[in-house]
Amino acid sequence: MQSRLVIDYRNATDVAVGTEHGVSLAMLNAVAPKVAAEHGRILAERAAGDQRWMNLPDDHALVEAILAFVDSVKGRYSDYVLIGIGGSSLGAIATIMALAHPYRNLLPAGKRGGPRLFVLDNPDPEKVKATLELCDLPNTLVNVITKSGQTAETMANFLVAKQTLEAAVGKERASKQIVATTDPKDGLLRQLADAEGYTTFPVPPGVDGRQTVLSAVGLLPAAFCGIDIRGMLDGAAAMRERCMTPEVLENPAYLLAAISVLADQQRGKRMLVTMPYADALFGITDWFRQLWAESLGKRLSLDGKEVFAGQTPIKALGAIDQHSQIQLYTEGPNDKLISLIAVDQYRDTVTVESVPAGIPDLDYLKGAELGQLLDRECLATAWALTQAKRPNFTITVPTIDAGIIGEFFYLYQLQTVMGGALYNVMPFGQPGVEAGKNATYALMGRSGYEKLKAELSVVPADAERFRLS
Amino acid sequence: MQSRLVIDYRNATDVAVGTEHGVSLAMLNAVAPKVAAEHGRILAERAAGDQRWMNLPDDHALVEAILAFVDSVKGRYSDYVLIGIGGSSLGAIATIMALAHPYRNLLPAGKRGGPRLFVLDNPDPEKVKATLELCDLPNTLVNVITKSGQTAETMANFLVAKQTLEAAVGKERASKQIVATTDPKDGLLRQLADAEGYTTFPVPPGVDGRQTVLSAVGLLPAAFCGIDIRGMLDGAAAMRERCMTPEVLENPAYLLAAISVLADQQRGKRMLVTMPYADALFGITDWFRQLWAESLGKRLSLDGKEVFAGQTPIKALGAIDQHSQIQLYTEGPNDKLISLIAVDQYRDTVTVESVPAGIPDLDYLKGAELGQLLDRECLATAWALTQAKRPNFTITVPTIDAGIIGEFFYLYQLQTVMGGALYNVMPFGQPGVEAGKNATYALMGRSGYEKLKAELSVVPADAERFRLS
Repeated sequence: MQSRLVIDYRNATDVAVGTEHGVSLAMLNAVAPKVAAEHGRILAERAAGDQRWMNLPDDHALVEAILAFVDSVKGRYSDYVLIGIGGSSLGAIATIMALAHPYRNLLPAGKRGGPRLFVLDNPDPEKVKATLELCDLPNTLVNVITKSGQTAETMANFLVAKQTLEAAVGKERASKQIVATTDPKDGLLRQLADAEGYTTFPVPPGVDGRQTVLSAVGLLPAAFCGIDIRGMLDGAAAMRERCMTPEVLENPAYLLAAISVLADQQRGKRMLVTMPYADALFGITDWFRQLWAESLGKRLSLDGKEVFAGQTPIKALGAIDQHSQIQLYTEGPNDKLISLIAVDQYRDTVTVESVPAGIPDLDYLKGAELGQLLDRECLATAWALTQAKRPNFTITVPTIDAGIIGEFFYLYQLQTVMGGALYNVMPFGQPGVEAGKNATYALMGRSGYEKLKAELSVVPADAERFRLS
Repeated sequence: MQSRLVIDYRNATDVAVGTEHGVSLAMLNAVAPKVAAEHGRILAERAAGDQRWMNLPDDHALVEAILAFVDSVKGRYSDYVLIGIGGSSLGAIATIMALAHPYRNLLPAGKRGGPRLFVLDNPDPEKVKATLELCDLPNTLVNVITKSGQTAETMANFLVAKQTLEAAVGKERASKQIVATTDPKDGLLRQLADAEGYTTFPVPPGVDGRQTVLSAVGLLPAAFCGIDIRGMLDGAAAMRERCMTPEVLENPAYLLAAISVLADQQRGKRMLVTMPYADALFGITDWFRQLWAESLGKRLSLDGKEVFAGQTPIKALGAIDQHSQIQLYTEGPNDKLISLIAVDQYRDTVTVESVPAGIPDLDYLKGAELGQLLDRECLATAWALTQAKRPNFTITVPTIDAGIIGEFFYLYQLQTVMGGALYNVMPFGQPGVEAGKNATYALMGRSGYEKLKAELSVVPADAERFRLS
């Protein structure tokens, strides 16, 4: 398989939007040696056993194991409940939104390709209760996903699902309806899975949650929903192959990393908007939003200085957000870099066959095909943004298929790793969420957090003054 | 009905996050005379027949007409297709997401409260085709919503739905299954509706699309889905009553407008994140995102100077985005004001009854109730953001019901009108989208746009140089 993504970045450059807002070829050339050096470092780290996410497309044994498992329970389940949050669910959601029928859960079983899918990410009692009431519990597979088993939201949702399932089918049978995707050796969920005899799949050691989409974390739910996971991995491998060049102007991941970081650091583009012109690709933008924010939003540089780095990723959807955000993007502060995603050939065509007589202003829609309209809206938006000197670039895909989705996943992950190098921050880990996590544990009365709980319980003397009720 | 929203803004002030990042009472007091004067202007404009959105909660005749229509076709339709984009669909989506069952379309007809709802906002051929194939066309009501009938996306989708419906049930019967929400007198859709004899409801003259949620635009779909629209209007009226004071520290809409604009202009908070801790409230943030962006994102001030105003609204969801965006919000650039929305009492309670023996690290979840967990996550996030000197405030609602949703709609609309005054820009209109709209017309071959089409067809000589394929 060959990579098929096309990137047109002219509108992000000074040639199109002027020197004040555009990235120049001189800027890109200036960063080229750094990019090439970091490319060497990344490959060396991979060779030394790090950057393990890069090897996920090669795990054919895992694919076989997943497909064998899905095959072994074929027809057994009407419902599939995925329990996971952040990196443990965003990849699967993105994949299934892109590649399954848009109303998958409403289709009859025979046309759906697997059971209905429900995601319990948030511990929202209204959603959780509704989900568990809706599922046909004797025919429901629960897939809980957390590497450590420490994630409060996931474990709370899982314990609720478990007790509900046990009440419906008994403890022994419930254990057979639970699949845990977790660390192969360590952690609370591993302990529990071993004790209760769940089927398990591994969260690969040495990769962050937000890098797991091409592991069992993302692939098992996708396979369960009938997605061609081999095709996804082939697409990712094709993009990996394409990204073997150290040249910033030839390597799509490095080019996008360089344009984005340079636009932020030297042209004040603090936000990176990703706006696909296809409902099916909206989930990818949400997955990328986590990746870019959590990887690059860092207080400390690699040499320990306070830098408060990071560009804010924003998800948008064309053409809908032309009627919501484009006014701001065009006339508001010029502080955004905008990535449009165009689709050459949608998977369906829908044509306006005729227009009503006597309303000449509608005549232009006669014979219009919706995909063509959407594509022209994308072009028109790129043009209008450029006229207003707002830097933007367009990624074009030939169509939406498993290979393309795999390409996006690999592209964006490598772009983010290079983004970390250009910001000079560690793209892995998320030290900034510890404080809030600990505060939640404290408020929930977890043992060992008593001191923090006492601190949190202090109501400021002036609290009422700032309260409007 | 009394307004029940509570605002706690201490964490947005210098008292909590320091003078560099917090808004001070002195700053709020300094803006108070301007706010009071603008309050007077707004009321005077209302008295003179402008600011008509403020009167929508009083249109009881409209409510009766809507409920009578819904009642007259009760049980007649299994499916309801809403065709509209931007202000013509975001309000209905927000309302129904907040107040209907989270899996409404999956429920059996008897438990659903009205037909299944499908929204055709984007002219995405994949989604449009899937929707029309899924609907039981002889029993489908199509509601097309556009004031002018000029909106290309809406009219294209509507013409496709119309031809599909006509093919299924014939032209005469199809006309009876179409309801047009449009200008009472003018425009292309009005012409068409009159010619074909559709039932129509009015888009109120003198209000922008993004102010129509409490008109037939938002209320008809809500009523069709079984929502208590009287309760919504009562909530909006209660908030209007509460907002009759000119005092910035007492008026919730003016307080939030002042904090947000001051945080942007004097403390560099270019982004306003809205992060409810409830899946049901996520649609409100998307509706608000259009309102804040399109109203305030303006190139020119009221006195005609180039100001490029506007704060970028961002939608987030607690607790999910703690696992996606909070790392960036806490450790990245301190350029955001974050609005958390907490819920005192969710509409369901779900309790973790027991935890597995032998895994002490899970003991803290024993007896945990999910709503309580979510509420504590919200508190913990507010605390952690404040520790990191990131300004934030919390809006607390007693529960999620029709009145509260009405309160939010009115609150945010008035906040936005005052926001316009504080930015010194015109909050109505969206001049910045014209260029893109015209370019779309040109590319679609609409007559009168030939010159622009020629201009758009020029391929730059250096196009290939900036293309990576």
